[in-house]
Amino acid sequence: MNTSMNLFQKHQSLLEDALKALTQRTYYSPYPENPKAYAEDADAKAKAWISAAMNNNYAELDQTGANGWVGEEVSPFLQVGIGVKYPMFSAETLLNNASAAQAIWGKTSIQDRTGILIEALDRVKLRFFDIAYATMHTTGQAYMMSFQASGPHANDRALEAIAVGYRELTSVPEKAEWVKNLGKFDLKMNKTWKAIPKGISLVIGCSTFPVWNTVPGLFASLITGNASIVKPHPKAILAIAIVVEELQKVLAENNLPKTIVQLAVDTLDNPLTKVLAENNEVKLVDFTGGSEFGNYIESLPKTTFTEKAGVNSIILDSVNDLKSVLGNIAFSTSLYSGQMCTAPQNIFISKQGVQTAEGLVAYEDVVTALCAAITGLVDNPKAGPGTLGAIQAELTFNRTKNASQYGGKVLLESKSIVNEEFKDARIATPVVVELEKTQSNVFNQECFGPIVFVVKTDDVNDSIQLAETLVKAKGALTCGAYSTDEAVCEKIAETMNNAFVPVSFNFTGAGFINSHAAFSDFHLTGGNKAGNASFANSEFLSKRFVWVGNRAM
Amino acid sequence: MNTSMNLFQKHQSLLEDALKALTQRTYYSPYPENPKAYAEDADAKAKAWISAAMNNNYAELDQTGANGWVGEEVSPFLQVGIGVKYPMFSAETLLNNASAAQAIWGKTSIQDRTGILIEALDRVKLRFFDIAYATMHTTGQAYMMSFQASGPHANDRALEAIAVGYRELTSVPEKAEWVKNLGKFDLKMNKTWKAIPKGISLVIGCSTFPVWNTVPGLFASLITGNASIVKPHPKAILAIAIVVEELQKVLAENNLPKTIVQLAVDTLDNPLTKVLAENNEVKLVDFTGGSEFGNYIESLPKTTFTEKAGVNSIILDSVNDLKSVLGNIAFSTSLYSGQMCTAPQNIFISKQGVQTAEGLVAYEDVVTALCAAITGLVDNPKAGPGTLGAIQAELTFNRTKNASQYGGKVLLESKSIVNEEFKDARIATPVVVELEKTQSNVFNQECFGPIVFVVKTDDVNDSIQLAETLVKAKGALTCGAYSTDEAVCEKIAETMNNAFVPVSFNFTGAGFINSHAAFSDFHLTGGNKAGNASFANSEFLSKRFVWVGNRAM
Repeated sequence: MNTSMNLFQKHQSLLEDALKALTQRTYYSPYPENPKAYAEDADAKAKAWISAAMNNNYAELDQTGANGWVGEEVSPFLQVGIGVKYPMFSAETLLNNASAAQAIWGKTSIQDRTGILIEALDRVKLRFFDIAYATMHTTGQAYMMSFQASGPHANDRALEAIAVGYRELTSVPEKAEWVKNLGKFDLKMNKTWKAIPKGISLVIGCSTFPVWNTVPGLFASLITGNASIVKPHPKAILAIAIVVEELQKVLAENNLPKTIVQLAVDTLDNPLTKVLAENNEVKLVDFTGGSEFGNYIESLPKTTFTEKAGVNSIILDSVNDLKSVLGNIAFSTSLYSGQMCTAPQNIFISKQGVQTAEGLVAYEDVVTALCAAITGLVDNPKAGPGTLGAIQAELTFNRTKNASQYGGKVLLESKSIVNEEFKDARIATPVVVELEKTQSNVFNQECFGPIVFVVKTDDVNDSIQLAETLVKAKGALTCGAYSTDEAVCEKIAETMNNAFVPVSFNFTGAGFINSHAAFSDFHLTGGNKAGNASFANSEFLSKRFVWVGNRAM
Repeated sequence: MNTSMNLFQKHQSLLEDALKALTQRTYYSPYPENPKAYAEDADAKAKAWISAAMNNNYAELDQTGANGWVGEEVSPFLQVGIGVKYPMFSAETLLNNASAAQAIWGKTSIQDRTGILIEALDRVKLRFFDIAYATMHTTGQAYMMSFQASGPHANDRALEAIAVGYRELTSVPEKAEWVKNLGKFDLKMNKTWKAIPKGISLVIGCSTFPVWNTVPGLFASLITGNASIVKPHPKAILAIAIVVEELQKVLAENNLPKTIVQLAVDTLDNPLTKVLAENNEVKLVDFTGGSEFGNYIESLPKTTFTEKAGVNSIILDSVNDLKSVLGNIAFSTSLYSGQMCTAPQNIFISKQGVQTAEGLVAYEDVVTALCAAITGLVDNPKAGPGTLGAIQAELTFNRTKNASQYGGKVLLESKSIVNEEFKDARIATPVVVELEKTQSNVFNQECFGPIVFVVKTDDVNDSIQLAETLVKAKGALTCGAYSTDEAVCEKIAETMNNAFVPVSFNFTGAGFINSHAAFSDFHLTGGNKAGNASFANSEFLSKRFVWVGNRAM
């Protein structure tokens, strides 16, 4: 396989940079996040592409044996179906295809797999703008987030998975001569080691981050030699279909079966996920979504990687500049209307208020200022629409609108704002509800969407304890903390870290707790109830294959 | 902690050698396996030690809150109780001690933990001869195996766990400055990462290899910061008690609580294992033993590492020198009377016989020669007793004696032989039973002990298929194969490796399929039903802690 060996050589220096980045964990990304870094006409071409794609069959996937075309995606910006139809396959067809492909892909060398997968990321890069529009019109993410999260940031995470995989797969030599001196003679053995792929991989996507949350598991399974079936959420297919298409093209160019990666499309009424997940031939399952289904996935007798729901908190104790802190929090809660797994839901504030460089600010004044910061952001026509995006699901929209159900004091009502480009967009600004510390039955639940609970606590220790109880019960992906007191910061770090939750301290300006950077931040720790996996620690890769060694005399 | 920092420095060059050995996987051992490499009076001193230890309290363990003394070990060589009594503790006491110790050990630096644990191995080395006699008089292993397996080979495996742990724990930097250029300004964060230990570790030992099978999990848990409770088999405590004692001494010398490692002794009538394993505070469980209990351990909602029963096969196709091959197999089946997890049970031979350099040898002649080879070995007074050792359990002895129950043709009866040193030893030589290929319900069960099934197959492909069916159903730790045909070897390798079983090809002379060398051979692959763990792949360590990263602006 000369072509792909050339691909390994072609991408070797990028691979080496990526491997180095893993050990340094400073900023690293080979895929620019600024749309202006790309071809000038790329955006216009993508607009034309999405217009042509809508109300059409997605015929670019090459999987034989389809039995019909389905698709029920709805644009949250247009609130009409986008009309894209995908080929539908039976579980049997998908699994048969995958089994046949597995036998070939599993024997493809680590170098060839590496070259092919990095090449695929290069091809995906050429589709970033298409992916951006596909993401917008399925998830409701605003343009910039759609571009960055599904494009460069997702590619970063995919490359990270490839790099960690390459590191793990090459951590044991292919062969060694083993010589043991036994006094009068040497005992010699020729030893060889192989990383045997576990088997067919199923990657189950979610409706809000159909690419970013899918590619880590997908590329992790692929680099370790496992044929993969991508099962997107029925409402967010188009963006990941492009990634699958580009992977299939590169595979075919290298004389490998396209069915090494297959797209398994289903509908809400005829779901395919459990049939695939429970099949004995499926050995690996990656899942992003709700906790109930995630717990079911974890209970299957196979290797699973889950990201479920967590409840993220901010502990607001003391600050230098309250305005910049509240501005930061307002953005964190408003970004994609709180539909990020890393969005903060609960803000714990002492009833004594918040100490600032200019003196103590009373609790009431803090929450009033927080609401004002959110209003200021969302009402700014230059910032609001691009920050909020649209609400992906009707359910989330309704939950936000009925915030009085939570039994607290509604400090700020959710409302809609005008998006000049998309007049029909489903928009909801954050609702802010004040709860007493006794109402943990409310704030200890994940209320997905732009819903913020302000919890009035006795003091910062009380805040920490409430946050700790919460993460031990429900897990979390992140925790924000604001304190100018070193000892308080240390206590928060120790408490949350011991519950396997990372903490972001004193974030202001352009740093947001929502963001986890590839090659630096682990996304999820895998140690709390928000999920059992971590993008991308060594286990995220090493659990996908088995070292087997042979010896010969 | 100056002392232990000095310990890190003291052992740093050994650590570096061990880390290098992991990547090269050639022969490496810092603990000589030849007893003659040690002090001349070491053996005599150990004999005196075991005489004093017998019928006495083992008072060297410093664990407060004991409620009595228990001990019911029986020497398979003497067939009398050895009378050693150990302090007994309630599960509550053990867990409270461990919780308190965990808080301190988890915060001890990686370097300090590394130095302390390697130092402990040095102290254990000074007790190798004591451990040898303790192993003999609990497991029935002969002197040389007791010395090597529980001494240097176990220390090798412990050091391997330390080294893999050190490598994993230092794979992420402690801190980094993360700087992202955003055009007009830089976004800066100070990041830190910690490997947070999962929590209390329980290591459950077995009756046949009380040290070798315990120390990998024990040292893996300790290097990753988890306080550990060692729960030995009630019939094989003394050898591992010495290891715990030496660990406790080194901990105390470094001003750390001895309860970082505790010995939990129970009795067959009042077992403690399930109470400990099911406790919520216990986060890690290492287990070696039967499949039924191992499956129960794996079903617990915690991180588990198991070595259960497997059924090991030899595929005998074609050879150069039949005599040397049969001599090798005879030794493999006789060593410690087949009471090794790596001992072969089934020998698949084509009914057409075995091709040799001197022509085809008929099937009947092969099995006759195999029985003769076993008889020649066990009847040799210089080789027999030292190879066989004694039978650890009455149950194993009875199973061997009742080989007619298996419904096959008994080709060689089990018998006793004279051990001049231990006239009362419980000894059973291997029984060889011929089975038809249709009797898979018999040969697909693990029959622990010196029981060998010869299975007459149609041809080598049939042998391979029978072995494959078996390992897929029951798992295996090893597979032996003899063939002079390259294509046959490749087929065996591919078939067995794809079932996650390693193969040893054409072993003769001093190479035995039973032996797995630390720093080179993975013991278990973790991929088949013989167990979910592997000594010591990266997962064996990385699953014991969680990476958590904090960020500050």
